[in-house]
Amino acid sequence: MKVLVVGANGQIGKHVVSFIKDSNNLEAKAMIRKQGQASLLEDLGAETVLVDLEEDDIDTIAKAAQGVDAIVFTAGSGPHTGPDKTMLIDLDGAVKTIEAAKVAGVKRFVMVSSFDTTREAIQAAPESFAPYVVAKHYADVWLRSTDLDYTIVHPGGLTNDKGTGQVQAASEVERGKVPREDIASVIVGCLENESTIGKEFQVVTGTTPIQEAIKSI
Amino acid sequence: MKVLVVGANGQIGKHVVSFIKDSNNLEAKAMIRKQGQASLLEDLGAETVLVDLEEDDIDTIAKAAQGVDAIVFTAGSGPHTGPDKTMLIDLDGAVKTIEAAKVAGVKRFVMVSSFDTTREAIQAAPESFAPYVVAKHYADVWLRSTDLDYTIVHPGGLTNDKGTGQVQAASEVERGKVPREDIASVIVGCLENESTIGKEFQVVTGTTPIQEAIKSI
Repeated sequence: MKVLVVGANGQIGKHVVSFIKDSNNLEAKAMIRKQGQASLLEDLGAETVLVDLEEDDIDTIAKAAQGVDAIVFTAGSGPHTGPDKTMLIDLDGAVKTIEAAKVAGVKRFVMVSSFDTTREAIQAAPESFAPYVVAKHYADVWLRSTDLDYTIVHPGGLTNDKGTGQVQAASEVERGKVPREDIASVIVGCLENESTIGKEFQVVTGTTPIQEAIKSI
Repeated sequence: MKVLVVGANGQIGKHVVSFIKDSNNLEAKAMIRKQGQASLLEDLGAETVLVDLEEDDIDTIAKAAQGVDAIVFTAGSGPHTGPDKTMLIDLDGAVKTIEAAKVAGVKRFVMVSSFDTTREAIQAAPESFAPYVVAKHYADVWLRSTDLDYTIVHPGGLTNDKGTGQVQAASEVERGKVPREDIASVIVGCLENESTIGKEFQVVTGTTPIQEAIKSI
């Protein structure tokens, strides 16, 4: 199964590509924005394709997705840019990727969302965080409205700690932290488990081995 | 016909309330954010209701919409705020108002959009303007997906010039300018003409009297 990783050079993305390399039946196509990001990802065994998620259109993304079997969306504008990029990457970049999946005929789609993207979470969010929640809310709503084979992963507070390999995952879990490395492992686990199709769940660090947690979703 | 004007204290909103006052069969309920905005709008003959489009939830907006026959959405975060407010007002505020219309059972909805909110317009927009186009794009998409009796008005470049009472209006017109006062007149014309239900059109200054232009849509 060939997987287009959108945001492959991101902090979760690199782990995803790395786990795909270690898997038996997956191979990665890393979608990146700059040529300078290619060598690292090629060293991790991935084919690379250059696309600017902000500047490029749906057809360009669809071309990158041509011939893959699944798409993972783990791109994000990051904490060092403003809400203008949140609008253009986290919302519109996600929707363009979803539409590109349709154009390219790629059914399987794994979305890395935010912990809580409900309407209630928008209203409850601190002012500085609210635009991000709005963006992720509408991206999730858009994906749910498609007939793609989607899974939406809602991670807790992301850390750069080493993965523990153990999580708590369910439709609703108590808010907590989780290493990016474990989220990458969860994403790859979703790709390997068709039982996660049409589902979404929150994930934080826990006591259940990731494979087991995914099978219980 | 009672009309909830969302963004009544805005530059278009005030003209809308004023034109409603001059009409025979319409009355305005002005939705405003601050109590200090009330007296001006009451002087223009409107009832007022206090709602913060950003902070308040769908149910609060629905309560404001209780008993009205139509909603005009002409709120905007304006050019002096950042894209965070664009996300929270122009996108999420619009969607909350649309959802509130459903909750309150108000079928008629007139949306003041931007001149071109197509996907192509997003890609073509200058970087500083793109987040606004994205916000208006998704608000329009949301409205189209409902079964509300909507009209979407896409005005050209807005000016504070006095209205000429003459416009060019069609699905696609050449980009141009148009006074806010004329857009307000177009909005009220839409409320008075059921033939505009389910339609959307661009409007710039032209040579056709507004009533005639609306009837030709």
